[in-house]
Amino acid sequence: MNEFDLIARLTRALPANASVVAGAGDDCAVLDGGRPGHYLLLKTDAVVDGIHFTAEAAPEQIGHKALGRCLSDIAAMAGRPLAAVVTIALPADFKVERVEGIYAGINRLAERHGVAIVGGETTTNPERLLLSIAVLGEVARDKCILRSGAREGDALFVSGELGGSMAGRHLDFEPRLAEGQWLAAHFPIHAMIDLSDGLAGDLPHILQRSNVGAELLARAIPISRAAKVRARSAAGAKPPLLAALSDGEDFELLFAAPGGQAVALLDGWKKQFPDVRLSCIGRIIKGCGVKLRDKTGLHSLETHGYVHFA
Amino acid sequence: MNEFDLIARLTRALPANASVVAGAGDDCAVLDGGRPGHYLLLKTDAVVDGIHFTAEAAPEQIGHKALGRCLSDIAAMAGRPLAAVVTIALPADFKVERVEGIYAGINRLAERHGVAIVGGETTTNPERLLLSIAVLGEVARDKCILRSGAREGDALFVSGELGGSMAGRHLDFEPRLAEGQWLAAHFPIHAMIDLSDGLAGDLPHILQRSNVGAELLARAIPISRAAKVRARSAAGAKPPLLAALSDGEDFELLFAAPGGQAVALLDGWKKQFPDVRLSCIGRIIKGCGVKLRDKTGLHSLETHGYVHFA
Repeated sequence: MNEFDLIARLTRALPANASVVAGAGDDCAVLDGGRPGHYLLLKTDAVVDGIHFTAEAAPEQIGHKALGRCLSDIAAMAGRPLAAVVTIALPADFKVERVEGIYAGINRLAERHGVAIVGGETTTNPERLLLSIAVLGEVARDKCILRSGAREGDALFVSGELGGSMAGRHLDFEPRLAEGQWLAAHFPIHAMIDLSDGLAGDLPHILQRSNVGAELLARAIPISRAAKVRARSAAGAKPPLLAALSDGEDFELLFAAPGGQAVALLDGWKKQFPDVRLSCIGRIIKGCGVKLRDKTGLHSLETHGYVHFA
Repeated sequence: MNEFDLIARLTRALPANASVVAGAGDDCAVLDGGRPGHYLLLKTDAVVDGIHFTAEAAPEQIGHKALGRCLSDIAAMAGRPLAAVVTIALPADFKVERVEGIYAGINRLAERHGVAIVGGETTTNPERLLLSIAVLGEVARDKCILRSGAREGDALFVSGELGGSMAGRHLDFEPRLAEGQWLAAHFPIHAMIDLSDGLAGDLPHILQRSNVGAELLARAIPISRAAKVRARSAAGAKPPLLAALSDGEDFELLFAAPGGQAVALLDGWKKQFPDVRLSCIGRIIKGCGVKLRDKTGLHSLETHGYVHFA
């Protein structure tokens, strides 16, 4: 049973109440906290030594990644993060300096995005470090973007460049909070997700929730330099396109917007975020599943994203 | 360096923003989410296999305890829990049935208290199970009870009975949510905390935040049957009063209210919660620290609560 099967089984019948606008199954939970015109967002995520980072990672990077993963999910709802709480589970031989370094990484990223760190829990996990962070955010009701609104005729966009994240970017990515908020403020974005499991792994989440399919243009997919370098230099490494589709931990935004707005959106983005690439990588079609168009024709995409455990 | 020293060091300079009413250092963080007349509450807590429960614990009990600890903190602010997110970190040899049992325990407690479970994260922690839960709650602004408001002349009260929790209660306690809300609705409660580290460990948190001291009456402290049984039957076990002061994981409410209201409060509680004992155990005095009055006189209390790691 893989992670997705287990989660599907566990989330079949979760307790709900009148505050729940969207529960498990989107980037964040969406809650009606009673403030007119606004929703609350709630998200938790964890990083574990040996799974999400190795001993070589600087403590600041570990803290950055742990908070950044949650902020990336807030970004995918076009939300604004308010506050975070941090659970840090420490191995028996922990060094105070390392814990302080982790907090320094959390705090620096939090400060940059105006997030308050409002408490947490320190406990023991004898064999390895584990960090679990929960973030509370907010979003205007009419700007909140779910995974479920993609429609036939939408164009598909992705920020940044994909693949090869393990070479370093997975530890120092910047959550696309400003980008997500700007998109929702200026364009009718129909669906959005952040890429944690790879384009081939995460696009299907939008498609299933929206009851549509997608056609990707192979040559339009932005491939990171790291993925290209690795393909050239490492024996047995994935070809660059496959890396871009399936490596995971890109923490970029993937979104669908009306095809007729594509030019205006690409132009507006370039002015607003000149240092962040935006690519139109395909379109939403009838049906289901992902098709990839390359110079040899149209193929059903069988590549799956990164599955955290099998 | 123990847990409290480490936390003190980590929380010296946490990022804040305009939404923070009370950050780290109370039972929950208190946030202004923009809803007139209301505050949001945010809390995270974790339980770890071998630290907070053993292999003998039923999976339902593990889930119950993980969520119950957070709900107990919401109770201590007189708050109402809205929603929770769950991070479950699974060992390599996890059984799906056990994970489902843990979720069953979480869900049953959540349903009883109207809490929505709105998502979470499933990850790997190869050697042992770890559960980290974050709860979002709410409270009316004029009913939110911090640790910091105790005043000279207040009476000190504790719900339930203390000590001996390890015999079983630490796995099946009921968070005192109804009690906390009722207290705030009917009496001017000055300060409140939930007892996780024992009366002797947690009372000082109220005292330090409120800049006052306390005098406890030894014979008024409600000692659990489990603590008494253990004192009689286990060689080297703590005397019952010491167990009640220091065992920890009672998850009862400790609060301070004007001495003049003590009789009305005890009477009202008895009518409202006939099955839950309420004891007036002492009073708030000038100065600092905890003094214990027994038949031999007045003693400075040196007993510390349970410290999670040393």
